[in-house]
Amino acid sequence: MKFKKILITGFEESQLDAFYLKRLDLLSNKRIYVPKDSPNIQKELADTDCLLSKFNPINKEWMDHAPHLKYIGVFATGYGQVDTDYAKKKGIIVCNIPGYSTESVAEFVIGMILEHIRELEKAKRQAKEGNYSEAGFSACEIKDKTFGVLGLGNIGSRVAELALGFGAKVQYWSRSRKKNYEQKGIKYENPETTISSSDFLSLHLVRTKDTDLFLNKQRIQKIKKGAVVINTCPMELIDIKALSERLAKGDITFIFDHPDEMSKEDLGQLSKYKNCIIYPPIGYISNEARMAKQKIFIDNIEQFLKGKPTHQVNA
Amino acid sequence: MKFKKILITGFEESQLDAFYLKRLDLLSNKRIYVPKDSPNIQKELADTDCLLSKFNPINKEWMDHAPHLKYIGVFATGYGQVDTDYAKKKGIIVCNIPGYSTESVAEFVIGMILEHIRELEKAKRQAKEGNYSEAGFSACEIKDKTFGVLGLGNIGSRVAELALGFGAKVQYWSRSRKKNYEQKGIKYENPETTISSSDFLSLHLVRTKDTDLFLNKQRIQKIKKGAVVINTCPMELIDIKALSERLAKGDITFIFDHPDEMSKEDLGQLSKYKNCIIYPPIGYISNEARMAKQKIFIDNIEQFLKGKPTHQVNA
Repeated sequence: MKFKKILITGFEESQLDAFYLKRLDLLSNKRIYVPKDSPNIQKELADTDCLLSKFNPINKEWMDHAPHLKYIGVFATGYGQVDTDYAKKKGIIVCNIPGYSTESVAEFVIGMILEHIRELEKAKRQAKEGNYSEAGFSACEIKDKTFGVLGLGNIGSRVAELALGFGAKVQYWSRSRKKNYEQKGIKYENPETTISSSDFLSLHLVRTKDTDLFLNKQRIQKIKKGAVVINTCPMELIDIKALSERLAKGDITFIFDHPDEMSKEDLGQLSKYKNCIIYPPIGYISNEARMAKQKIFIDNIEQFLKGKPTHQVNA
Repeated sequence: MKFKKILITGFEESQLDAFYLKRLDLLSNKRIYVPKDSPNIQKELADTDCLLSKFNPINKEWMDHAPHLKYIGVFATGYGQVDTDYAKKKGIIVCNIPGYSTESVAEFVIGMILEHIRELEKAKRQAKEGNYSEAGFSACEIKDKTFGVLGLGNIGSRVAELALGFGAKVQYWSRSRKKNYEQKGIKYENPETTISSSDFLSLHLVRTKDTDLFLNKQRIQKIKKGAVVINTCPMELIDIKALSERLAKGDITFIFDHPDEMSKEDLGQLSKYKNCIIYPPIGYISNEARMAKQKIFIDNIEQFLKGKPTHQVNA
């Protein structure tokens, strides 16, 4: 069995290596890429039976415009942007790519923290200009600091382990207790205490209706003075207006890497603050993760066509 | 007892906080700063009984020009730049500052590695310019890579532990075996195998006559293709010409942070290579290390004046 038409939107085809694009083309008669904001998207959805997307919302409207849709492949781990319940009602199977980037994102979180507290970008740039002075540099260590992790899933627990290796006092909150990590010395706390007492605070929550705006105004106001907050999750977890207000006070640093999924307004609001550090969405990018991600993505589609879907999130 | 004249050279007085400068001024009648290349240095040495310096060579000539010299305080851990044997003959006590920056340097090494393999400077700069594309980024993970440490002293062993936390295969060579680290899973190897098989190779050797040019031409040629080599030690450990030749091949990356101690010629030779990444000497800079360093530095001087020198390196 083959698909009639694969529609790719929300990520560029160049994100798939030639080898995987070839495998993909064996699975359909036609492949088309349409930008998510294109006026043609409704027309193109009309005869699509396989929709491949990334972080763009796939809501009722989209699905109603795609009467032949059988399969939605999310080119990411997070799938909160897809109305999976409605998909289920319509018999559309939604699959994601779990776990491929655990190590890559966890190492990236530590990298972004070290870059910030050691001023590595500034140092490297200054040295490139031939200025080798250490004057004006200040830094702190991760050791002995309080390191909070919100959400102790695959990535969160790996970040917690790495922080423990650096000699930080690590605490976490997660929907469910993880006794095996507590035995390693990672302390369970409620969200409020984790937020108010952590010098470093890293968010690793899956995006669901329950976690949207998890970091609300009240919680943002309670972030420890001087803290560095890192979000490698979708920004929907955060009240942007409240975050802007806190950033304006200048007493926290906020680092995130998903500017691509934000509205221009929200992004403009955050990017004006020096204490808001923005990265392109490269946390999950590593040779190791890139290979694993593409393989699982294409495998999922093949398995669906064989009648044995893998990594279905709305079973 | 007080010194008659403290001469500071090789580091600027601004590296000492006001609190510590005050403590220093209680210990002498006069304090003067002279740049190490000043034509006045000989004249100023003539009546100096306390010389405070950093990485600049303090050789026989210097000491012969300072007939009243009783104490040399090195504002660093490394003291290979001081002719300690000759100082001993002349009854001059040399003291250093050991261990103050172990954690700071070890975290910096991991930071520089992550900055490089994740392209953090480029990513941050690009995002600052409003370009949030992930296109063109590539990266690798530390996990499962072979991580070599040359010299398993205070700093080297901490770097090895951190690398182990990231899930690297860690190997080391050091003058003496360290069974306690081997029990943690850090493997002992000879220098040649460590050099030729490590994906990441970090140097942590104390500078002595035996370790000068430790990384000689033959060894530099054996560095693994694609390896990232990090040197936070004095560059005298390395054959600069052979390193330039290897860098010209473009198949390794070399990162170091002591450009300030190099000749203009040597530095010019290295800085032309894109695969040579230079940082100002900020590895040991952290709030925690800065405080510990100054405290030990001034304590040493006080203790000498009390007749009980601490951290003497030429006893």
